[in-house]
Amino acid sequence: MTLRKRTVAILIFDDVELLDFAGPFEVFSSVRNLTGDHERLMDVFTVAESTAPVRCRNGLVVQPEWSIDECQTVDVLVIPGGAGVRAALGRNHVVEWVRTRAQEAELTVSVCTGSFLLAQAGLLSGRPATTHWERIGEMRERFPEVEVVEDERWVDTGDIITAAGVSAGIDVALHVVRRLYGADVARATALGIEYDYWE
Amino acid sequence: MTLRKRTVAILIFDDVELLDFAGPFEVFSSVRNLTGDHERLMDVFTVAESTAPVRCRNGLVVQPEWSIDECQTVDVLVIPGGAGVRAALGRNHVVEWVRTRAQEAELTVSVCTGSFLLAQAGLLSGRPATTHWERIGEMRERFPEVEVVEDERWVDTGDIITAAGVSAGIDVALHVVRRLYGADVARATALGIEYDYWE
Repeated sequence: MTLRKRTVAILIFDDVELLDFAGPFEVFSSVRNLTGDHERLMDVFTVAESTAPVRCRNGLVVQPEWSIDECQTVDVLVIPGGAGVRAALGRNHVVEWVRTRAQEAELTVSVCTGSFLLAQAGLLSGRPATTHWERIGEMRERFPEVEVVEDERWVDTGDIITAAGVSAGIDVALHVVRRLYGADVARATALGIEYDYWE
Repeated sequence: MTLRKRTVAILIFDDVELLDFAGPFEVFSSVRNLTGDHERLMDVFTVAESTAPVRCRNGLVVQPEWSIDECQTVDVLVIPGGAGVRAALGRNHVVEWVRTRAQEAELTVSVCTGSFLLAQAGLLSGRPATTHWERIGEMRERFPEVEVVEDERWVDTGDIITAAGVSAGIDVALHVVRRLYGADVARATALGIEYDYWE
């Protein structure tokens, strides 16, 4: 474990589910060094196919910070889900970006149906993985090469971690903080956002 | 209890804490009629002092849907918190808007230090209310007329409900859904976002 700073890219797209990415965004951007100057340990930003505003599934309009062409290697890659994932699965440029960035990243994390994008990129073949409970059947059908797991808040296979739906993005993000910075930093982060539930 | 549709306005401002408002936004916009056409029961939108983009405390840039001058009476008013609340407390036009809209609304809900804005608007005098656990002392000092409560996830005084910090916005929003639409609708909403923790 090291306290070196990490960059976190969160992919967003039209009809992304708001909490799928807002949960990890909140957690990762709240991570602080517990000693010294209590500086931020994770630099979090959003990435989209272009820098045009993204309309989330529930209507909130978000301005992406980078386009995928501008965003190079990052330490942590976050792929949220939502109704817009189905369209994103057919966007080869996006799927290829996910594959490349994930292969270079220290950790790749999906939330909800974001795991569909990881599967589409060939990153989950022969691995256990999960998704939103309502989409378990669809994931099995679409991606028979994936060992789809249900009733888990997240499935950690080392460099790739897939989480269940929506609010599970908060839990998996705290798990990632624990892996990268240790239990004390993760608990302090959870305390800061008043989220006792994950452990 | 009635299944009539409600409008929900969420106030945002520079340096608002992301999850403070994204949690309630996700919950309220996920509420569906359990029978018939399963239509959306709550129409959720953001409001800011102007329609200029708002930069949340963690860097995410959001496009507000309405300015406070355009946004008239709503059924549910949500006031999040975050570092930017302190600046907002001195914006008389904003505080006055909060007072007026809250007095007309069926329910007003604050998250985190959003309760400071309700107190500034004179809405919490003589009432029990809460805030983020780290801000309990500051709230007592700033607003001695408020009966500040700690160690509660939310405090429901009827037409005004104040919640604890950040993630507690998810819990209080589900509580509001239960009050407005009953336990079955609230549980279905929680199931949709995979959030079992609140009850």
